[in-house]
Amino acid sequence: MENDFTSWLAENFSPANDKTILGIGDDAALLASPSEPNPPTTSSLLPREQQLTVVSTDLLSDKVDFLVKDISPVAIGYKAASVSLSDIAAMGALPLSMTVAIALEKKNSSPPFNSNRKTDQGSNGTPIQDLNFAKEIYTGIKESLRPFGVDLVGGDTNYHYGPLTICTTAIGTVSSKNVWRRSGAQKGDLLVVTGRLGGSLLGHHLNFRPRVAEATRIAQTTNIHAAIDISDGLAIDTSRLATASHLGAVLDLSKIPVSDSAVLLSRQISTMSVVDPQKGKGAIEHALYDGEDFELLLALSPDSAEDLFTKLANEIPLTTIGYFTDRPGLWEGRLDEQNCSKKELAPLPIDGFLHSL
Amino acid sequence: MENDFTSWLAENFSPANDKTILGIGDDAALLASPSEPNPPTTSSLLPREQQLTVVSTDLLSDKVDFLVKDISPVAIGYKAASVSLSDIAAMGALPLSMTVAIALEKKNSSPPFNSNRKTDQGSNGTPIQDLNFAKEIYTGIKESLRPFGVDLVGGDTNYHYGPLTICTTAIGTVSSKNVWRRSGAQKGDLLVVTGRLGGSLLGHHLNFRPRVAEATRIAQTTNIHAAIDISDGLAIDTSRLATASHLGAVLDLSKIPVSDSAVLLSRQISTMSVVDPQKGKGAIEHALYDGEDFELLLALSPDSAEDLFTKLANEIPLTTIGYFTDRPGLWEGRLDEQNCSKKELAPLPIDGFLHSL
Repeated sequence: MENDFTSWLAENFSPANDKTILGIGDDAALLASPSEPNPPTTSSLLPREQQLTVVSTDLLSDKVDFLVKDISPVAIGYKAASVSLSDIAAMGALPLSMTVAIALEKKNSSPPFNSNRKTDQGSNGTPIQDLNFAKEIYTGIKESLRPFGVDLVGGDTNYHYGPLTICTTAIGTVSSKNVWRRSGAQKGDLLVVTGRLGGSLLGHHLNFRPRVAEATRIAQTTNIHAAIDISDGLAIDTSRLATASHLGAVLDLSKIPVSDSAVLLSRQISTMSVVDPQKGKGAIEHALYDGEDFELLLALSPDSAEDLFTKLANEIPLTTIGYFTDRPGLWEGRLDEQNCSKKELAPLPIDGFLHSL
Repeated sequence: MENDFTSWLAENFSPANDKTILGIGDDAALLASPSEPNPPTTSSLLPREQQLTVVSTDLLSDKVDFLVKDISPVAIGYKAASVSLSDIAAMGALPLSMTVAIALEKKNSSPPFNSNRKTDQGSNGTPIQDLNFAKEIYTGIKESLRPFGVDLVGGDTNYHYGPLTICTTAIGTVSSKNVWRRSGAQKGDLLVVTGRLGGSLLGHHLNFRPRVAEATRIAQTTNIHAAIDISDGLAIDTSRLATASHLGAVLDLSKIPVSDSAVLLSRQISTMSVVDPQKGKGAIEHALYDGEDFELLLALSPDSAEDLFTKLANEIPLTTIGYFTDRPGLWEGRLDEQNCSKKELAPLPIDGFLHSL
């Protein structure tokens, strides 16, 4: 669904000015520096190295991305900021700045408008969430940004007649020579993932640490062909990486690093008596489809992968979980049969936690 | 109210990295270019001229900033984008790029989550607004951006259980030597406004053209000490400009250019029989307090003002409406008594359409 709507957007908003290096369709946009005297073309082949500006926007709402009734405003702010930092990391970029817009919830206590006011006066309604609540959200945002030296540079705090809504825009920088896009994976490239996957709803989706430091280390160490962060789930995000690169992808389910939470969740649910669509889901399904892992998924050559593991396996949790193929689609297969002429591939359903249209 | 909360934010989020030239508290943030080898300090005195990145975020919601039931999604998108372009213009900057995050409305048709899902699956609920509605919003955004060559570089489209919410982030560029801030007005500076004020709710708040071209022309022509765009109302925005510059401001009510809509509105309401808080409001009150004029309010020396009027009065509607004084506060007085020793000043109530906390 995201792909259809995103395609419509990309078709209808082709770049009009020469500062737009990469517009709609990736984890973040890439903009040429305004001070560049000779802006590059919009082609993927940039004429020479320069620092690009990276921008990504996310919107999170109560009852969709978190539950105000169950978690603290500090945790909500932390998640909102971290989600956008993760998008910047997925470009191999360094985040520097963030703007935040928040709509706190109020309810109608008097008519919000009348025939003489087409819009609210901005002062009607009864706040459900007060200023201290807003300050706690910003405290959570600060906790997310501080370890990475990222500045909150703009904050727009409002009330509206609806659920708490937070929009974060992260801005960062990356060299044009090192930037990671979703496109760029090559046939035979390996799929490497950071961390462990699945079961994020048990807590990880709120308290994860975005892979900003890891992205920087990896970008400094080896050549990455393509990357994405796992927000909607390993299956769908692998599929996006493959599609953007005009390839297919094979996942070796036996290699996927499954989180303890995914295992716990699969046991909890299988002992429950209520009818539930997730009943009986195994740990591996949680790892494939839960989403909100916010781990990095990387495409790189086997040589680069060997280099990466040699240099960084001690400091960053890295696992090879699959490879790219010229057969379009998402497949289940074995890594050790990658180069066999008669490898067996089974289609893998593409599903996930769809955050966007 | 905005000032208190904004002050809290500014105190708690002092810049941590040297790319932040200006953080929270103005119409937009100012960031040093990532490619600058010697980033300037965060002092307001920049060491040398460079192109800065300008960023501003706004959030608009149904029933607060527009009414979905009364106006088209194209008009909503146009307004959302134009509000952010106006913020960039208020810095004397040129907008280049925009990201948009939209939360469309859906309602609960099934429980949005259960004990096994702490968050919504992203696919529950029944849409109130469909994909065509979203496309029309983006069409309105395009209509706002196209005349200025601004690119939509990111779009995040979601559903949530609440009113249509749109978050726009505009990114632009300005020379560090020409950037306009809210601070910088000097005692004796004149207050000059573009266009006519008041009554925006009769239509202007939806179809205004942000003063992007005018800001560029003015910045090229003369030296502006400080600027703001009138979003919350002439009175409160004048007060913000004065406060940021550690000064007071005097408005000459006889000089304020009142829009036809403000006059019409004052007549319409005075003949209405219903009890209404706005009943009896005169046209000048609409000009002072309605807000959403999205005109530029400029502080400049009398010499610069003369220069500006000589060069641009034929192409841009410009009116001198007051001056800055070292007596803190917002005052009503006469422009032609500015230099009298015994000028009479009466306090002017500070009120407006408060968009933010």
